[in-house]
Amino acid sequence: MTFRVDLNSDLGEGFGAWTLGDDDAMLKVVTSANIACGFHAGDPTTLLATCRSAVAGDVRIGAQVGYRDLAGFGRRFIDVSPADLTADVMYQIGALDGLARVAGSRVTYVKPHGALYNAIVHHREQARAVVDAVRSYDASLPVLGLPDSVFLAEAEAVGLRVVTEAFADRAYTPEGTLVPRNQTGAVLHDPVAIAERVRRLVAEGTIDAIDGTVLTVNADSVCVHGDSPAAVDMATEIWKLLTASGVSITPFT
Amino acid sequence: MTFRVDLNSDLGEGFGAWTLGDDDAMLKVVTSANIACGFHAGDPTTLLATCRSAVAGDVRIGAQVGYRDLAGFGRRFIDVSPADLTADVMYQIGALDGLARVAGSRVTYVKPHGALYNAIVHHREQARAVVDAVRSYDASLPVLGLPDSVFLAEAEAVGLRVVTEAFADRAYTPEGTLVPRNQTGAVLHDPVAIAERVRRLVAEGTIDAIDGTVLTVNADSVCVHGDSPAAVDMATEIWKLLTASGVSITPFT
Amino acid sequence: MTFRVDLNSDLGEGFGAWTLGDDDAMLKVVTSANIACGFHAGDPTTLLATCRSAVAGDVRIGAQVGYRDLAGFGRRFIDVSPADLTADVMYQIGALDGLARVAGSRVTYVKPHGALYNAIVHHREQARAVVDAVRSYDASLPVLGLPDSVFLAEAEAVGLRVVTEAFADRAYTPEGTLVPRNQTGAVLHDPVAIAERVRRLVAEGTIDAIDGTVLTVNADSVCVHGDSPAAVDMATEIWKLLTASGVSITPFT
Amino acid sequence: MTFRVDLNSDLGEGFGAWTLGDDDAMLKVVTSANIACGFHAGDPTTLLATCRSAVAGDVRIGAQVGYRDLAGFGRRFIDVSPADLTADVMYQIGALDGLARVAGSRVTYVKPHGALYNAIVHHREQARAVVDAVRSYDASLPVLGLPDSVFLAEAEAVGLRVVTEAFADRAYTPEGTLVPRNQTGAVLHDPVAIAERVRRLVAEGTIDAIDGTVLTVNADSVCVHGDSPAAVDMATEIWKLLTASGVSITPFT
Repeated sequence: MTFRVDLNSDLGEGFGAWTLGDDDAMLKVVTSANIACGFHAGDPTTLLATCRSAVAGDVRIGAQVGYRDLAGFGRRFIDVSPADLTADVMYQIGALDGLARVAGSRVTYVKPHGALYNAIVHHREQARAVVDAVRSYDASLPVLGLPDSVFLAEAEAVGLRVVTEAFADRAYTPEGTLVPRNQTGAVLHDPVAIAERVRRLVAEGTIDAIDGTVLTVNADSVCVHGDSPAAVDMATEIWKLLTASGVSITPFT
Repeated sequence: MTFRVDLNSDLGEGFGAWTLGDDDAMLKVVTSANIACGFHAGDPTTLLATCRSAVAGDVRIGAQVGYRDLAGFGRRFIDVSPADLTADVMYQIGALDGLARVAGSRVTYVKPHGALYNAIVHHREQARAVVDAVRSYDASLPVLGLPDSVFLAEAEAVGLRVVTEAFADRAYTPEGTLVPRNQTGAVLHDPVAIAERVRRLVAEGTIDAIDGTVLTVNADSVCVHGDSPAAVDMATEIWKLLTASGVSITPFT
Repeated sequence: MTFRVDLNSDLGEGFGAWTLGDDDAMLKVVTSANIACGFHAGDPTTLLATCRSAVAGDVRIGAQVGYRDLAGFGRRFIDVSPADLTADVMYQIGALDGLARVAGSRVTYVKPHGALYNAIVHHREQARAVVDAVRSYDASLPVLGLPDSVFLAEAEAVGLRVVTEAFADRAYTPEGTLVPRNQTGAVLHDPVAIAERVRRLVAEGTIDAIDGTVLTVNADSVCVHGDSPAAVDMATEIWKLLTASGVSITPFT
Repeated sequence: MTFRVDLNSDLGEGFGAWTLGDDDAMLKVVTSANIACGFHAGDPTTLLATCRSAVAGDVRIGAQVGYRDLAGFGRRFIDVSPADLTADVMYQIGALDGLARVAGSRVTYVKPHGALYNAIVHHREQARAVVDAVRSYDASLPVLGLPDSVFLAEAEAVGLRVVTEAFADRAYTPEGTLVPRNQTGAVLHDPVAIAERVRRLVAEGTIDAIDGTVLTVNADSVCVHGDSPAAVDMATEIWKLLTASGVSITPFT
């Protein structure tokens, strides 16, 4: 029996003269690229180049939609109205889809970014606003998000395909939620331990919570990072161990 | 024999709390709406609403692409590199196309805005950059521009359909170019005289230059404005006279 | 005995090609101009012209600081960190102070705008962040805000001069807070009744709550609006009645 | 006899999550910091921190004013009107001056950035617009620029103090202008040779043109870069050789 998993990462997050992360290295590791759409990061030239690199590397393109906040990199909650959020998300998907199309592909899924991602774990109005945008744009597009989030529940309720993800380098509470970043032990750092954690998640569907409780986790994709050399090393380590263990790393779209 | 002409106007040019022009009134007059794409004007909520109104009024949607310059409303030349300009234009077309699609239509043509429009009358590198963007996005999209401009020549050279326009309220030199705005008599103001001027342009293909020379002008579309009550009145006057004269006002797409 | 009051209004809220409100009319009515600082509205050319008009009309200049959100006009809460908010507010005060100085005056007070104003009625961290910015920039600058707000309490605690304001066209609850805008009767519309309401507030220090309860309100300034012709008429009506009643309309700085 | 020179560099050029250059390293080398003002780079938090570091290192703060163009990093000419440019520059100086003041210092000079710097070598209207802004803001502020530029000529004509600079790593034509970047040999790379070049410039007032002609160059300051590890090394090398040669590295303000 062969186990399968998708690896996803945030890419295309530079802006003009400013660069962020090693996209080329990450495109050798991941199967799904969450590419920024210009509202929290990503100028069109960078986005087009990233789409082209993704296509060249046979990596799927997802629209990493966010709040309109370059200065805050989309990491600050904005109490935007649902109507505005829906239009903002449609605009972003359309813009990236245009560039993806020029690059020879299309946007094949949507993953919210940063503070928007976190907000719609609980914020029903904003979750619905994002879901409305995706459904109106193309109801066949899957959404990628946190298991048990309001976002995925709302998406499922209107018939969108939902794809769940786990975080390679984050600790989990015994209840299966992420340990908040400001708590000790919230973020894991040992590449070898993390790679083994991901392998077990994929092969056995379990993960150890921060207190040792064994959790059953259902994740179609695992989120890895590329915003520092250490992050790239960790992602590469995960890729190597999964490959060596016979896990098939394949996109969910 | 029935004469035909298209009327086009710039719409969707508000931004957030700021509004500009009477789009509803103009959508009763024009057959082609050059809708802003967010770089010089147009927040997504406004753009989506404008696309929906255009569809409701059976008006075609064009992507009114411009320089990235909200503070300058796209009216200042920016010496952007061709590669960046191409990506900027692709991004804008894609974004508006996404909203148009949600509204039940599509972007059916591209018309550059403001300083970009003026620059590519002569600036070959930027003209080619816009043409590259349109062709790469969708080679079946026509471009709307000034007769004899470098932009239309470059578009034609690569096989794009080109659509020419005349300006209802602008004086022409004996050579057939527009009298620069800073010269006396450059802008016409009498709605009745302007309407008759447009009728004659459509029916006879001629227009009087500022010195009385009779020019032969070939225009598939006439550009009208809606950014002031007087402008809306003028556009309405043109529409009325054309209709009363038996001219068929029909979109070029 | 002569009663005195200050009238304040938001000015300079255009951006580039977009205008908002009739600043010239309002400068004949108010004694304190809350001038935007470029983050939610106000391009430098508009701000400089507004400062010059304020100086010409002998109207005081206040820094109307807000969230960095042109698309939302500063009307959406942003969960910006205190450190970033402090720096954002300092930057805005400094920028407007520079223009005020060129115009022959200085920023003489600070009034937060929109969603920031509303947030720091309760949000202690952001309130402190704004207070820190004002105190660090110039501890002699008064702040203008809502009576009983956390913002004014924090400002007072560190020794800033606090100036309270009432709203001419807003209904009050029996507890003395503003009736939320989404409730019936929250906004008043009759210019004559509103002018009399303001006169009584100034002369007697009382105002009728929405249920008829007579409230004692201590307001050093009254906020009036100029963003529509009706609003300008109302502000003018207030000015006329106060003047006719012998009230001295004088700035608090 | 002791020779003296100022070393200046562009600092504070990050924006939000994006960083650029090693400001801490450069503050050990330079005596004048051209700090961005938010229009081409520099969020307020970064700018405030940079001002504080400059003050801690006894480095002078200059306002590095630029075009409003974050996406282009101020490197693209914008045909902004003189009136708008003047207001934009005033706004930027005021904003940075506010932060510098909080940090315990003030803006002590102005140096235009990027495309604006290059434009006003020749573009008289924009040069005058910048000069007007500086003079109106504070006529005692010196401006830093290219020898023989229209900018410095216009500044001198109205009585501003002008400070000239040379570029450590750029080749000069026999006429004393910079070899355009797109020509072979335009940029020098050998740190040791460059340091010696700067030493000789300071001590003897001469520099070798690209064809070997010995030029007499009058420079009060030398511009060094910190946007790459190699650039920081070069700047450090220059500092070491000048110091070892007994040159006094002192600010011009």
